[in-house]
Amino acid sequence: MNYKMIRYVLSWVLRVEGVLMLLPAFIGLLYREEAGWAYLIMAAVCGAAGFLICLRQPKDREIYMKEGLVTVSLSWIVMSLFGALPFVLTREIPFYIDALFEIVSGFTTTGSSILTDVEALTHASLFWRSFSHWIGGMGVLVFILMLLPVKSGSMMNLMKAESPGPAVGKFVPRVRNTAKLLYRIYIALTLVEILCLLIAGMPVFDTICLSFGTAGTGGFGILNSSVASYTALQQWIITIFMILFGVNFSSYFLILCKKYKSALLSEEVRMYFLIILSAIALITWNICSQYAHIGDALRDAAFQVGSIITTTGYSTTDFNQWPELSKYILILLMFIGACAGSTGGGIKVSRILIMLKTIKKEMTSLIHPRSVKCIKFDKHPLEHEVLRSVNVFFITYMVLFVFSMLAISFDEFSLETNFTAVAATINNIGPGLDGVGPMSNFGAYSWFSKIILILDMLVGRLEIFPVIILLNPSTWRRKC
Amino acid sequence: MNYKMIRYVLSWVLRVEGVLMLLPAFIGLLYREEAGWAYLIMAAVCGAAGFLICLRQPKDREIYMKEGLVTVSLSWIVMSLFGALPFVLTREIPFYIDALFEIVSGFTTTGSSILTDVEALTHASLFWRSFSHWIGGMGVLVFILMLLPVKSGSMMNLMKAESPGPAVGKFVPRVRNTAKLLYRIYIALTLVEILCLLIAGMPVFDTICLSFGTAGTGGFGILNSSVASYTALQQWIITIFMILFGVNFSSYFLILCKKYKSALLSEEVRMYFLIILSAIALITWNICSQYAHIGDALRDAAFQVGSIITTTGYSTTDFNQWPELSKYILILLMFIGACAGSTGGGIKVSRILIMLKTIKKEMTSLIHPRSVKCIKFDKHPLEHEVLRSVNVFFITYMVLFVFSMLAISFDEFSLETNFTAVAATINNIGPGLDGVGPMSNFGAYSWFSKIILILDMLVGRLEIFPVIILLNPSTWRRKC
Repeated sequence: MNYKMIRYVLSWVLRVEGVLMLLPAFIGLLYREEAGWAYLIMAAVCGAAGFLICLRQPKDREIYMKEGLVTVSLSWIVMSLFGALPFVLTREIPFYIDALFEIVSGFTTTGSSILTDVEALTHASLFWRSFSHWIGGMGVLVFILMLLPVKSGSMMNLMKAESPGPAVGKFVPRVRNTAKLLYRIYIALTLVEILCLLIAGMPVFDTICLSFGTAGTGGFGILNSSVASYTALQQWIITIFMILFGVNFSSYFLILCKKYKSALLSEEVRMYFLIILSAIALITWNICSQYAHIGDALRDAAFQVGSIITTTGYSTTDFNQWPELSKYILILLMFIGACAGSTGGGIKVSRILIMLKTIKKEMTSLIHPRSVKCIKFDKHPLEHEVLRSVNVFFITYMVLFVFSMLAISFDEFSLETNFTAVAATINNIGPGLDGVGPMSNFGAYSWFSKIILILDMLVGRLEIFPVIILLNPSTWRRKC
Repeated sequence: MNYKMIRYVLSWVLRVEGVLMLLPAFIGLLYREEAGWAYLIMAAVCGAAGFLICLRQPKDREIYMKEGLVTVSLSWIVMSLFGALPFVLTREIPFYIDALFEIVSGFTTTGSSILTDVEALTHASLFWRSFSHWIGGMGVLVFILMLLPVKSGSMMNLMKAESPGPAVGKFVPRVRNTAKLLYRIYIALTLVEILCLLIAGMPVFDTICLSFGTAGTGGFGILNSSVASYTALQQWIITIFMILFGVNFSSYFLILCKKYKSALLSEEVRMYFLIILSAIALITWNICSQYAHIGDALRDAAFQVGSIITTTGYSTTDFNQWPELSKYILILLMFIGACAGSTGGGIKVSRILIMLKTIKKEMTSLIHPRSVKCIKFDKHPLEHEVLRSVNVFFITYMVLFVFSMLAISFDEFSLETNFTAVAATINNIGPGLDGVGPMSNFGAYSWFSKIILILDMLVGRLEIFPVIILLNPSTWRRKC
């Protein structure tokens, strides 16, 4: 294990976090809030800590698979441990575990909150929460690595560990350039959303925070009613951008290259839109009796569907009051999640597609035992390795889900509450149903359950293996 | 597709069912019930239908994989379609879909009921319900094939399709002899249970019905309170026998051969007992505050754990009133299920074990990328084919689960009701929680949902593929 290199990367994570904290500090000072100073102090602390833990560049800068996994999860944990401190310092979230829950929820773009009254927060903290979504959405590590002198192979190992989806695609030969392109698309889309919302008449501060939350598919709102109190037009804009940020970013790359046909033919993206449209249609039909105008039903259905399938987690209505069918569809969407290669969480549409194709192949081979058929994806045959990794991912995901539920059921909340609490955190959604529905929060859980849910959020964002490799004692044995 | 052979097997299924119906007819006449005549008439109808649909032995007696799968599921469906008729004829269950639900629940050893008042049934029908568990537990098709002149390879294809578990083991070289041995163990264990219960002072009729239900891991009771009103000793006897019928029958075979050490070293059986003991301990600790004596808590915990993990479904208490942790553990046990090669349902302990080993292997290969490790089971390396089939089984199982829930959620029952209704039927358990808890029943569902749940029961008992191959249009295309 290359400990020096891990320390080196961590030191840079802290330095960058220090710089990032200057923004909420600035916002705080702009609004003449004391909290601004807390963020300024923490920015200095992060920077200093970053310099202290690693004074020299290591000679051996190689990162292998194991180091990559460990580095990624450690980075996210260290970033969260420091990122939670401002909340405690400003006494807005006095208990550290609660503050940690909140910031992990931010960085992992979950959006689950332990706060009852969001509106009581300072502008600095509101901004820091939303900003954490934006930072976490694209992954901070790949960004840092673009700045550091790391070899392409090592960078690939870190990208694999941090990026969601069954396989990391390179659009252009060099990893570094692929990463740069991704960040450009991300920033451009965010700016367009900010612009659209400003034109639609939303206040500047709200615009920036909500756009950060949409872009990272996070879900922290700045009002207790989430997005319900904004105008219909503003809600529609957010709906559209949520759905756009759930699309596989390689489609945007193809569009930039003017390969419109390939972008439109992506099986995953087509399936993604098919699921969204079917879900909106079914839910609108199911809830329209509760509304005076079908347009309102459609808007609420579209917003909630977009919010849940992209794992954003904003809400415009208390969908806990919806009929069972609609609630069940939302739960399904929680698990399906967004496209691979987007900022969204969940199992991912491409994995679902691959699993459905596996079933189809099994049936074909039972009916025609002698036929040899391979599974194709986007017209290319799928490698055995990808299939295997999808299977293992799914099985591990289910096992972790089951054990998380077991761990938090000591708290004696209802089955629906516990089930959706784990679903909402492991899929990085935000709100669940019943006791953790959109009008409730996660504050009532014990500290033990909160730690479990924090781990679930990390597991969901980093796609399981980085976290369990970090927690596996045999990773740390000298001999290996 | 060898249609003639399929018809030939189906004709024998009906003839044997006709003979089997003579037993409830006899019971009915013994108790001087009119229902006895209904069963007698139906026995004649089944026999006649059996003779009519196939008058001659087919020349080509080969059964390939596809025919095997189709034959097995068709046999179970035909058996159920005729087996439901006596309930309608005696007007005890006037609606045919309800009667079908009841008898499919019987044959698939589920034990879910649509009846509110079981005690209102005649002895003949009570006996037929329990007897159907016993018939379905071991599978009627393999029994029939022992009598027919079918080649060993064809028989293996049918056994594979009807027997639960990831792989069919042959104890002795000839398939026919393996099947005979299994039936002998099954009958012997049932007789021992009847004897034990008689000695413990249970009435003869109750003894026979309850033993049938235990042996098939079915769960139809003959009292509205299921097993709650029997004595503590009788409950303990049933607990022990439920657990024994959930053990892989190959262990009994090894014991018969005096290979005690191999029987004890079976990983699956050890895991099975480990799960049972942990679950009993946790639940006893969790519920003991609700009981005056810890002995009562232990007895109820052991009974419910044994009943649920073996997918029997008897109950001695309304576990819907238990704390959330205990309820959640029971739900977990529903999915785990019994050992492969037993009469129980669920995912099966061996599949769970194989999946856990897959995760462990994945972690090892991430930590030591160059190590080559194969997964071992009972000290033998697992074939790739078995691993693949376990993965595909699990994925298909989850997909069917999700779609079944979607289909029945149009009925607008609570999430917990729908979730446990599907879990209880697809795992062949019997009762679920909330609206389908041990003190409630499945009668409130619409006919559409009942059909979905009927299919789930068949899917659970026949381990998915026979049923979906039957329902797949491409199975029936001429060209193939």
